[in-house]
Amino acid sequence: MHSFPQHLLDGHAHFMSGRYAREKGRIRDMAEAGQTPTTMIIACCDSRAAPELIFDAGPGELFVLRNVGNLVPPYEPDGNQHGTSAGIEYAVKVLNIANIVIMGHGRCGGITAALDPKFRPLDKGDFIGKWLTMLGDLPSQLGQNGLLTPSERQTAMERISIRNSIRNLRSFPYVAALEEEDKLAVHGAWFDISTGELWVMNESGDFIRPEL
Amino acid sequence: MHSFPQHLLDGHAHFMSGRYAREKGRIRDMAEAGQTPTTMIIACCDSRAAPELIFDAGPGELFVLRNVGNLVPPYEPDGNQHGTSAGIEYAVKVLNIANIVIMGHGRCGGITAALDPKFRPLDKGDFIGKWLTMLGDLPSQLGQNGLLTPSERQTAMERISIRNSIRNLRSFPYVAALEEEDKLAVHGAWFDISTGELWVMNESGDFIRPEL
Amino acid sequence: MHSFPQHLLDGHAHFMSGRYAREKGRIRDMAEAGQTPTTMIIACCDSRAAPELIFDAGPGELFVLRNVGNLVPPYEPDGNQHGTSAGIEYAVKVLNIANIVIMGHGRCGGITAALDPKFRPLDKGDFIGKWLTMLGDLPSQLGQNGLLTPSERQTAMERISIRNSIRNLRSFPYVAALEEEDKLAVHGAWFDISTGELWVMNESGDFIRPEL
Amino acid sequence: MHSFPQHLLDGHAHFMSGRYAREKGRIRDMAEAGQTPTTMIIACCDSRAAPELIFDAGPGELFVLRNVGNLVPPYEPDGNQHGTSAGIEYAVKVLNIANIVIMGHGRCGGITAALDPKFRPLDKGDFIGKWLTMLGDLPSQLGQNGLLTPSERQTAMERISIRNSIRNLRSFPYVAALEEEDKLAVHGAWFDISTGELWVMNESGDFIRPEL
Repeated sequence: MHSFPQHLLDGHAHFMSGRYAREKGRIRDMAEAGQTPTTMIIACCDSRAAPELIFDAGPGELFVLRNVGNLVPPYEPDGNQHGTSAGIEYAVKVLNIANIVIMGHGRCGGITAALDPKFRPLDKGDFIGKWLTMLGDLPSQLGQNGLLTPSERQTAMERISIRNSIRNLRSFPYVAALEEEDKLAVHGAWFDISTGELWVMNESGDFIRPEL
Repeated sequence: MHSFPQHLLDGHAHFMSGRYAREKGRIRDMAEAGQTPTTMIIACCDSRAAPELIFDAGPGELFVLRNVGNLVPPYEPDGNQHGTSAGIEYAVKVLNIANIVIMGHGRCGGITAALDPKFRPLDKGDFIGKWLTMLGDLPSQLGQNGLLTPSERQTAMERISIRNSIRNLRSFPYVAALEEEDKLAVHGAWFDISTGELWVMNESGDFIRPEL
Repeated sequence: MHSFPQHLLDGHAHFMSGRYAREKGRIRDMAEAGQTPTTMIIACCDSRAAPELIFDAGPGELFVLRNVGNLVPPYEPDGNQHGTSAGIEYAVKVLNIANIVIMGHGRCGGITAALDPKFRPLDKGDFIGKWLTMLGDLPSQLGQNGLLTPSERQTAMERISIRNSIRNLRSFPYVAALEEEDKLAVHGAWFDISTGELWVMNESGDFIRPEL
Repeated sequence: MHSFPQHLLDGHAHFMSGRYAREKGRIRDMAEAGQTPTTMIIACCDSRAAPELIFDAGPGELFVLRNVGNLVPPYEPDGNQHGTSAGIEYAVKVLNIANIVIMGHGRCGGITAALDPKFRPLDKGDFIGKWLTMLGDLPSQLGQNGLLTPSERQTAMERISIRNSIRNLRSFPYVAALEEEDKLAVHGAWFDISTGELWVMNESGDFIRPEL
């Protein structure tokens, strides 16, 4: 077995002398008392789209689930193992989370693969291909008509996917019920990994920059 | 629709004037060139166990998948949607990741639920319960014998689970093959959310503190 | 006949005591010597998208043609009166312009009308409807599939239209020839009338913000 | 593709830090609410005759159509594409404009070409030549008799052309009807690009300086 990656050990040392040293009291209290984040973020695994960095968050602030393409499946109580659904159930039922944010990002490899007519399974398991079927026929609905540039199609699908995931999230009965009672708020966001800009979804489903 | 959580908007503003401003060139290059992280971390959603904070990582450094209990299922090419498996396939087949770290942590709610004989489904979907069946009968194998304190049982199962997940990870044919060829290294780690200490798994499956 | 609009008389008085007074020498020289703008802008009539304001331009700087929807027709030497084509011919053949910029903008009423399946002629002349046929079947190609929000479709069509107008501009033989010889450069731009941002078209046909 | 003209990028930066910053609230409101200019100006493309500069106008104030020679064709509902007519239809039918000003200017290249007996097509398309046929035989009616200096002929034709365009504008049935009902006012103006003076047409068709 190889030695543990040095960049992680170095980074952890910085954490200990930096943030941990500064916030030690709070960190220890949270360990004792349990976590009480008010916001869950469902984000992508992409190394350029980490919620804690984008939102400058500290320990205890965000309950974060990350999967390929920040996808949320519809509510399917079929007895199978559904990791993202388990995360949502945990956030809502155990942590009584107040906000769920589904955050997509630009140049998402998962979306690129979903839009690629030449995508072939990378392995007989084809877990990526099967996972992306969560987008249904949205990619073909968007079309290949050449009017949009590849970059415009990519961004469009990233946002269509977020809206789709939000719809799926609302198919969870307790999510819909708590939203109705104003006890839970559902949000969409899209992060531009190049400019660093955060685009937030409004009531029309459009993504806008809140600070402008 | 509620307005976007203010703590996230504030945090993002700090990110823009802080890290983004400082690392803008590198961030933009990564957006253009694509991500090239060398390490994948499979961690828990827990707000107190964020890899970017624990390892003081910056944008582009870590490909991160987070689920409840940082569990990895065995390789099951059965045509179903497997999110964690899709993440592993993406990291290995697309990003040619050099390291996969499965990181558990202390006081993990998922492990607590798995150990709790009185755990009942929180919803008819019982996604948490079904998700935790990934631990098989390890909880009952560990026993209820009272010899270990509840905290010791908790820590023990967290580490047993990491070892189990590592075994499952190695059931992915390409993971085993690349490890064999020394092109991929698999690691286990356990983070103490109170003391901030990082424990790393050695060849025997034991968790030790590397700096000591 | 009504008296001349007072806001125009007042504005002109401000011009005379302000800019005219400051730039009088240069203004008189240009009257004598003839105009020598190096850039032509083809923009929309929209009161919120005036090139001189957007580019803080002074007298003599921009040769500006404005029509509904900043549309450029293909080169059609059919003996009819083609105002926009006459403007292009004047800019290139008489003024030896170095740059032609086709600038569209957000919330363009012309584009909205082109996308509106319920649009009906406002007058038996239906000049607007006939003018918009310059977009051909691009609106129906874009589709009505509901994946994009109305705002997203609007912005998409505004940019598709600019790309289409640029293609039409390049069908003018002298435009294509001068571009080939590097004596004329053709550009696309899209102005956000809300945020004031200027998006510029790159080689891929994508609209980006140059300052980021 | 060449990089976007720097003078435009610089000008836009000035706009953003100057006018946009000062008028941001109003500009954003207009983007949301739609444009409500009360005056349409039909002006020439000439870089020395920009309405926004001459009238010190701000965003949202003027609906501006600019073509070579600020010409207005007669009402011709013949199914062809008529850009200037489309602009008039839009201003009157969509924006319910209160004033239409046709503004010509001194040393107008379009008028010079129309008066030049030696003018030859600059291209086989001869769009300029065809466009100027909108003046009909007015140039030859004015004569070549040498009594007027070239400059006097130029100014005379510029003003004759404005009167001609006003007649053509009034051939639009809805323009005539709304003028009759006092809901729309039609004006002529002529701008001296050297002295900056604005001459306004009175009921007799004469151009006078209003402030005198």
